[in-house]
Amino acid sequence: MAKISHFECARCGEKLAPATLLNVCPKCAGPLWVRYEFGRPDREAVKLGPATMWRYSSVLPDVEPVTLGEGFTPMLPSRKHANVFIKDEGLNPTGSFKARGLGMGVTMARFYGVKKIAIPSAGNAASALAAYCAAAKIEAHIFMPKDVPMANRIECESYGAHVTYVDGLISDCAKMVAERKQAEGWFDISTLKEPFRVEGKKTMGYEVAEQLGWELPDAIIYPTGGGVGLLGMWKAFEEMEQLGWIGSKRPKMICAQATGCAPVVKAWEEHRETMEMWKDAHTSAAGLRVPKPYADREILHAMKASGGTAVAVTDDEIMAAFSSWAREEGVFAAPEGAAALAAYWKLIESGYLRPEEKVVLFNTGSGLKYIDVFEKYFRKKEQPKSRALGGIIQPY
Amino acid sequence: MAKISHFECARCGEKLAPATLLNVCPKCAGPLWVRYEFGRPDREAVKLGPATMWRYSSVLPDVEPVTLGEGFTPMLPSRKHANVFIKDEGLNPTGSFKARGLGMGVTMARFYGVKKIAIPSAGNAASALAAYCAAAKIEAHIFMPKDVPMANRIECESYGAHVTYVDGLISDCAKMVAERKQAEGWFDISTLKEPFRVEGKKTMGYEVAEQLGWELPDAIIYPTGGGVGLLGMWKAFEEMEQLGWIGSKRPKMICAQATGCAPVVKAWEEHRETMEMWKDAHTSAAGLRVPKPYADREILHAMKASGGTAVAVTDDEIMAAFSSWAREEGVFAAPEGAAALAAYWKLIESGYLRPEEKVVLFNTGSGLKYIDVFEKYFRKKEQPKSRALGGIIQPY
Repeated sequence: MAKISHFECARCGEKLAPATLLNVCPKCAGPLWVRYEFGRPDREAVKLGPATMWRYSSVLPDVEPVTLGEGFTPMLPSRKHANVFIKDEGLNPTGSFKARGLGMGVTMARFYGVKKIAIPSAGNAASALAAYCAAAKIEAHIFMPKDVPMANRIECESYGAHVTYVDGLISDCAKMVAERKQAEGWFDISTLKEPFRVEGKKTMGYEVAEQLGWELPDAIIYPTGGGVGLLGMWKAFEEMEQLGWIGSKRPKMICAQATGCAPVVKAWEEHRETMEMWKDAHTSAAGLRVPKPYADREILHAMKASGGTAVAVTDDEIMAAFSSWAREEGVFAAPEGAAALAAYWKLIESGYLRPEEKVVLFNTGSGLKYIDVFEKYFRKKEQPKSRALGGIIQPY
Repeated sequence: MAKISHFECARCGEKLAPATLLNVCPKCAGPLWVRYEFGRPDREAVKLGPATMWRYSSVLPDVEPVTLGEGFTPMLPSRKHANVFIKDEGLNPTGSFKARGLGMGVTMARFYGVKKIAIPSAGNAASALAAYCAAAKIEAHIFMPKDVPMANRIECESYGAHVTYVDGLISDCAKMVAERKQAEGWFDISTLKEPFRVEGKKTMGYEVAEQLGWELPDAIIYPTGGGVGLLGMWKAFEEMEQLGWIGSKRPKMICAQATGCAPVVKAWEEHRETMEMWKDAHTSAAGLRVPKPYADREILHAMKASGGTAVAVTDDEIMAAFSSWAREEGVFAAPEGAAALAAYWKLIESGYLRPEEKVVLFNTGSGLKYIDVFEKYFRKKEQPKSRALGGIIQPY
């Protein structure tokens, strides 16, 4: 495992000792990156590790993991589109990619002696925090919109978390955590307001490389809410180049968002360096309802440096992509994941992507977390054909 | 990969050529086992394989897999009970252990040229069949009780399967498949009425061995509906001994059932060799609502030969175990899986199991498949404590 050398501010470059757990840069409030003394680990040695994200222990902190078996999810070659791969994050514990970041975040919180953790969440991060806190015997305090999918509610309460439902968005939840955390003694594990969730998420970048034979794809389409995974992968690529595991080629980093909440797309199209708070955010892809990502500059930088782009898709386009993955690939995706496929279709149509380019689409979670969302959506639409056969029948 | 030598009837020993895909023994209607010409595969070579059940390709049929990344699920050491492990099958594609059997069943159906498959199901097998049929471009015809969990309905319809909801149990569904299959040209992939689902499920036995260092545990507690997994593991142990991968020690094979549908427990306690149809089967653990397992003799034989037993637990005991796993282990289990923990508690209390015995509990699926079941159950009970904090709050 790797020794942590220091925390480094992604904005002002300030270096900070890792003796205590920090949130953000004390000088400029920028997000902190973890820097390591790596030594010279061999990339092939990961094959001897477990079938979890901890197989990359040579580039992760030297601690006892709080693990539920997260990471090393399948990289499925598409059966419909040549050169396309589906990275199926739905097979993580708690059914989403959030398990990586929160698994690592809770691991490090326990290491640093934290007893209570608070999170504002669009839903799936809350479920993951609740699960890992249960495993680590740490108190979890969760703030999420009252209209999150039913799964998130039942999960968080079952794990024994303290849950507050907010009549608002994740940004409103974040304000409540910020205001109460000092008095309550909560460690704030909000997206990019502590350095370790991105360390968990970066393992997606290592997996993309390992699973494609240490040759990065031409593009990655990533459903972007807070954007931690995108930044984590970007960090992983830098680290791997530094370690000599890969060369300097980078995939185009492409953000998929919903038209009902597309702050990344707006900032990208307007050539801005920061993002504005999106008003009246709404989409059935709950995880994309993040009106303003905290690491806006860093996301836009990775997109620019890689020749990437950002695409917004409608809820109907998302649901069409969901159906395509289910019917043609056997993958029951989260709406956020389906947004990546919908974005791929648009980018092929526009000519930005060519069919011969190797593209990885991230399905960030299992559709099982959105059963009530699908039920509601499809009930509004005309009955699917299978229902015609689906009348209830009396047995003999 | 292994060459299939022949099919062998588990009851009468009849040997049959594997040139065509068969259902059951044409002589006695017993379930068919697949026998191989194994050669001398090395158990350590599996570590170089993929992190799926196909890592055991040296003991599986030599075909192109229809895969969604099934198998090689986590073996989590319990944080509460020393010497207990949770085999978390919820991290499979389609969220349950059914992915193994149906992944293999559909793989072989495609290999043999099957175009249409029918299944009677308690719910999760239907979802898995629908997913693998979508991937394999085979028509899926599903018959399941009208009151299956919502997830099973949405999954099957999303995957594009032809679904018939039956006002009855899986046994009623089975009758409907049996009556229509010849006219419709359906291949019947019912539990143990074809030889390959058990080949997929046997990989659980290989994983138990590999993940515990090729030393089998003292006991395995297995939530038993149709019992394919139990028989698959039992077959795996035999094969591994034949291959020299393990010795002759066997774990006690213990069936966990619900008091509302416990045909295995009843037959076991009455020292019978076959099981009777359970009347008025009911339990919130939908997968355990199998009134009469087809392979009744074979299940009872494995229990007897291993010094095992069978235990029935109530729905309240199941839900208490579900809560314990969520709050103390961070595992959000299916009710069927929780039945294994409830059974463990009972067997420790009765003295049948001692705390120093190494025991593997199978969580057969993700709790995400039962969100509506939990919602209904917990709404009936008094509000959990966290709800007190869970009122909806207006943000500033």
